[in-house]
Amino acid sequence: MKLNRRQFSHGLLVGLGALSFRRLPFQTQLRVNGQRIMDHIVALAEFGKNPQGGVSRVAYSDADKQGREYVRGLMRDARLEVKIDAAGNLIGRRAGSGSNLAPLLMGSHVDSVPEGGNYDGVVGSMGAIEVAQTLAENNVTLRHPFEVVIFQNEEGGLIGSRAMDGELTEKELDLVSRSGKTIREGIKFIGGDPERLAEVRRRKGDIAAYLELHIEQGGILDTEKINIGVVEGIVGINWWDVTIEGFANHAGTTAMNNRQDALLAAAKFIEAVNRVVTSVPGRQVGTVGRINALPGAPNVIPGKVVLSLELRDLDGAKIKMLYDRVYAEAQSIAAASKTKFDFKEINVNIPAPTDPRIRSVISESARALGLSTKSMPSGAGHDAQDMARLGPVGMIFIPSVGGISHSPREFSHPSDITNGANVLLHTLLKLDK
Amino acid sequence: MKLNRRQFSHGLLVGLGALSFRRLPFQTQLRVNGQRIMDHIVALAEFGKNPQGGVSRVAYSDADKQGREYVRGLMRDARLEVKIDAAGNLIGRRAGSGSNLAPLLMGSHVDSVPEGGNYDGVVGSMGAIEVAQTLAENNVTLRHPFEVVIFQNEEGGLIGSRAMDGELTEKELDLVSRSGKTIREGIKFIGGDPERLAEVRRRKGDIAAYLELHIEQGGILDTEKINIGVVEGIVGINWWDVTIEGFANHAGTTAMNNRQDALLAAAKFIEAVNRVVTSVPGRQVGTVGRINALPGAPNVIPGKVVLSLELRDLDGAKIKMLYDRVYAEAQSIAAASKTKFDFKEINVNIPAPTDPRIRSVISESARALGLSTKSMPSGAGHDAQDMARLGPVGMIFIPSVGGISHSPREFSHPSDITNGANVLLHTLLKLDK
Repeated sequence: MKLNRRQFSHGLLVGLGALSFRRLPFQTQLRVNGQRIMDHIVALAEFGKNPQGGVSRVAYSDADKQGREYVRGLMRDARLEVKIDAAGNLIGRRAGSGSNLAPLLMGSHVDSVPEGGNYDGVVGSMGAIEVAQTLAENNVTLRHPFEVVIFQNEEGGLIGSRAMDGELTEKELDLVSRSGKTIREGIKFIGGDPERLAEVRRRKGDIAAYLELHIEQGGILDTEKINIGVVEGIVGINWWDVTIEGFANHAGTTAMNNRQDALLAAAKFIEAVNRVVTSVPGRQVGTVGRINALPGAPNVIPGKVVLSLELRDLDGAKIKMLYDRVYAEAQSIAAASKTKFDFKEINVNIPAPTDPRIRSVISESARALGLSTKSMPSGAGHDAQDMARLGPVGMIFIPSVGGISHSPREFSHPSDITNGANVLLHTLLKLDK
Repeated sequence: MKLNRRQFSHGLLVGLGALSFRRLPFQTQLRVNGQRIMDHIVALAEFGKNPQGGVSRVAYSDADKQGREYVRGLMRDARLEVKIDAAGNLIGRRAGSGSNLAPLLMGSHVDSVPEGGNYDGVVGSMGAIEVAQTLAENNVTLRHPFEVVIFQNEEGGLIGSRAMDGELTEKELDLVSRSGKTIREGIKFIGGDPERLAEVRRRKGDIAAYLELHIEQGGILDTEKINIGVVEGIVGINWWDVTIEGFANHAGTTAMNNRQDALLAAAKFIEAVNRVVTSVPGRQVGTVGRINALPGAPNVIPGKVVLSLELRDLDGAKIKMLYDRVYAEAQSIAAASKTKFDFKEINVNIPAPTDPRIRSVISESARALGLSTKSMPSGAGHDAQDMARLGPVGMIFIPSVGGISHSPREFSHPSDITNGANVLLHTLLKLDK
């Protein structure tokens, strides 16, 4: 999608309208420059731009490196003291007036999935830099030190934020990323030093708070015409590989009642996952996204199927309950179809709740700006989930048109981006008190 | 499976027992030499032998060429006049006493699927050669000319028998076979001449009859402990590729009620195929053997699925009726799941009924040998289906242990092989009258 400057008009009006609140104290009148955020988004979209729209700015690619260089310039323009940490994260710091206070962090990422869009990560990154610039232009000095963090390789497994948690293993450094480089090579490529990752690590209490602005990536705010999502937490994600063993046989000579069809059993399982997940109230989701049936010939009854099962919810106990029910359904299907189901846990992300106080401050800030809000989980993973291990976190969502994300068709209105950045700014100001 | 000579004892007893019928006319006392068939099967199993059992004697491979050379020797030993036709089929001829009679044909194939067994095609080929040898040793001259045909590349699409029908297209000759060679190159490799395929072609009426002995490849005869299957016909096979279009989206941020999950729709379709095919009496089969879901990541809702649908039955009208019902189910699923189904016909093999008179002769011959029979369709394709376009055909099945085929575990008892070859011999003798 080509960004059109005329689309920014509403954002500009919101910004200008704020100037009329003369009777409010100085800080409550502060507004970000929505036009400048959009200019930065448009400029960053050139790095890794795809002819058919969107970007492929995969972490550790040339486009990623060049895009980060551009972002580093924006951070310097916003009068931040910029460094690349040993993990390759871009960190811009502004000193605070207080003594011995932990920093307030704000950030996101600028790497994309292959054939991704121009908003995922970028809105939060450009929003945070705009907040820094607004503070600088208005000579606002916070009590806390303030850091803008552009985490590296969010899309490839939250690598930058996990390095800050001290979770990145030596083994993981040798995995090959989508760029073709190993993570170790990638970190060097973008200016980090994989031998010095220990220096990057922060501990619980090392941060006063972490705030992240992000596009929703779902369709709720857009459908319900709500300005701001107040994120209750980042869902837990459990992923299993499920192997179904039947018996491969000739599709012509094996009677229907004499089959052990692993794909027919898999079909019943996929339906069962959907039925179980939708059988209880709530916002949990369950997905079978990958399937492989062997031997995979039209004239052979599949003898083996491997598929992925993913369950997500804010409540780990609910994920466990859903899994238990799905597992029980699988056993019934196995018995009825003379097949065997085997579940292998591949990955677990535990749920990361946001801080209740920060949620209130976000809601309050939005209300003061005349914006509607809705509490909601984040169904996607974010760097904020790693920051939640170091201190209280808050996340602010803005609407994604049509709920589309990880696609060139990803789009958020400039007015919503400006709104989100203003909420980010005022939440920061309130938390600094 | 290692073949053990002790397993042949029952076959030998049947053979020796026949010598006591002194009061019957000479020809009804004729019996094949079961031991010799087994010796030939064991010897042929060396060509393309796999260390883990079975053979990979894929058409146009070195093993195939060497195996065919061995078979050519057996045909010469059976006093057949042997040639390789331009399509690469091995043809052994024995002159008849009548004048201007079309030949009686008998045959099968000796190529295998990759990691196949030692019985599929081989039993019918060695059985036909043994019939020729029995005739020769007993100085029996038939009225009709008699031809043993070892068709080339049956497993790769009935290539040899389709050449004899004149159905092999120029385009098909350039397709790459499992051996890595094109069919054109393969034909040259085994001694044929792809430029002279027109010479191979036969027309309706050019053959007096075609008989083929084969393993059942299903489990019916084995389960029901029946000696001989009298094949009613070779089923029609219709294959479609079905494309299901949904919408790929983020598995974490897309609510369950807001999905267009192509794999969930595919699961319902696979269940519907099974339900429709088993909802009416009969021996029809329906299979989804291949499935591909895109993009195929655990954390993305599948936006597109392509799967194969195969329906088989002896009655083409029944296949049509089943397809219409499956198609209607697909439309309901599409409407309910906001997906779109598209069916593309990939291949159609029309049903090939066997000749009623030949079926009676097979049954009669089996009964005279004291063997039980059962009428049944062939769910698998065979060269006989192409020969059915040239004249009346008959097929004789013997039990496959456990119904296993296209596998190193494929096995038929020597006694059953001997029985089958004797039925083949006596059906031939009766048809010659």
